[in-house]
Amino acid sequence: MAHRLRFVVAYDGGPFSGWQSQAGGNTIQDLLEKAFAHVTRTQVRVHGAGRTDAGVHALAQSAHADVPTRALTCDEWIGALNDSLPPAIRVTRSRYVSPRFHARFSAKGKVYRYRIWNDRVLPPLEHGRAWHLARPLDLERMKAESSVFVGRHDFAGFAANRGTPPQETVRTIHSLQIRSTGACIQVEVSGDGFLYKMVRLMVGALVRCGQGRAPAGEIRARLETPLHAFPRARLVAPAGGLYLVRVRY
Amino acid sequence: MAHRLRFVVAYDGGPFSGWQSQAGGNTIQDLLEKAFAHVTRTQVRVHGAGRTDAGVHALAQSAHADVPTRALTCDEWIGALNDSLPPAIRVTRSRYVSPRFHARFSAKGKVYRYRIWNDRVLPPLEHGRAWHLARPLDLERMKAESSVFVGRHDFAGFAANRGTPPQETVRTIHSLQIRSTGACIQVEVSGDGFLYKMVRLMVGALVRCGQGRAPAGEIRARLETPLHAFPRARLVAPAGGLYLVRVRY
Repeated sequence: MAHRLRFVVAYDGGPFSGWQSQAGGNTIQDLLEKAFAHVTRTQVRVHGAGRTDAGVHALAQSAHADVPTRALTCDEWIGALNDSLPPAIRVTRSRYVSPRFHARFSAKGKVYRYRIWNDRVLPPLEHGRAWHLARPLDLERMKAESSVFVGRHDFAGFAANRGTPPQETVRTIHSLQIRSTGACIQVEVSGDGFLYKMVRLMVGALVRCGQGRAPAGEIRARLETPLHAFPRARLVAPAGGLYLVRVRY
Repeated sequence: MAHRLRFVVAYDGGPFSGWQSQAGGNTIQDLLEKAFAHVTRTQVRVHGAGRTDAGVHALAQSAHADVPTRALTCDEWIGALNDSLPPAIRVTRSRYVSPRFHARFSAKGKVYRYRIWNDRVLPPLEHGRAWHLARPLDLERMKAESSVFVGRHDFAGFAANRGTPPQETVRTIHSLQIRSTGACIQVEVSGDGFLYKMVRLMVGALVRCGQGRAPAGEIRARLETPLHAFPRARLVAPAGGLYLVRVRY
């Protein structure tokens, strides 16, 4: 009989090809499955709360796996898995849960953070960890325009164009906060779910406001008429500035 | 006629073989000299305030170089050099100075910071940026023992044994502060100069106190009788936790 282990995993997205398993094998999911295989000597499938793209970091991604034995305590799982993982991936918590728990389907929402470094020079230790924008951004304008994101909207205008359009593009944003400390601007957004590249497109739209490139009301217009073709180029914030902060259940 | 350019450089020590030029070429000094050569089309020697070992980071190392032309403004130097440097090395400031200024000989002191991560799991984004010590350290004991470092002492007992012993091992520590925020313990030390590996040996000695491995007064004894052979093993804190914060002039 399998036992469901729920766990939290943090990672530096830089060295990996994103969360989702792929042929090359250099993904967080692949490396976690390899670690489980090493510990259990069987194949174990890892289910994450959501995928993150190459370069995107996680402070606390959530996942589960069905393990063949309960011989290890939760603390022993953390130690055994981390011994088999590269230091850029760490399991930080684990516990046995009911098989009714599912990392993805039980999730009620997620919190993401996006970091912008708004100064002439990007400090070396921020490379791959923040979006470097050298020219001063109009922070007040960004804050003012950001409020329209909060609430229930059709985010089709803030979704990446993948092969097939997503079926359901309505999402609820519970909160969006923009804070700045020195040169660092942090956008933190909490919502019930996010479309592919949605946070990076939201941040890109806010940066267009902060750069004075977007006319007033552009974000509102894109939310209200999401299916219209927008002649203006959308801006996708780079992956390295994005952090999955936590998954809410 | 040469013009002396003084500049401040920040780097992530992880990818490089330290500051000082060497045959392999993968050092901060080598890469800066390569950037100057690219910009000026001549060979330019870079003089740093001090060497840092492989893996040691700098928030603000100081350096100077004699450049063949004053055709570039200080801001243009920053841009031109950074265009020729990897993102893990950034020139953050520059200005023309009198040829009497020397990055190393004019320096009055330095400030270093050492970061310890005192928690069971090291967050992936702290890998190579903090010393991971899983078991709880006795912070109060570390703070109490640290006060003996402040002042003028013979630090021979806190210098690495290189081929030839350093000639003068008396240094003055102006301040040493230990602060903790969550799992992160930061030791910040300001002094008129530091021997090879001195900060890392000081932090190692403090950690021995925090781990309860050092008898009370061990640090004082090592300062007072520096030339005695110490039977106890010294602990060298790893390079990745060390940051050159600034050079004082």
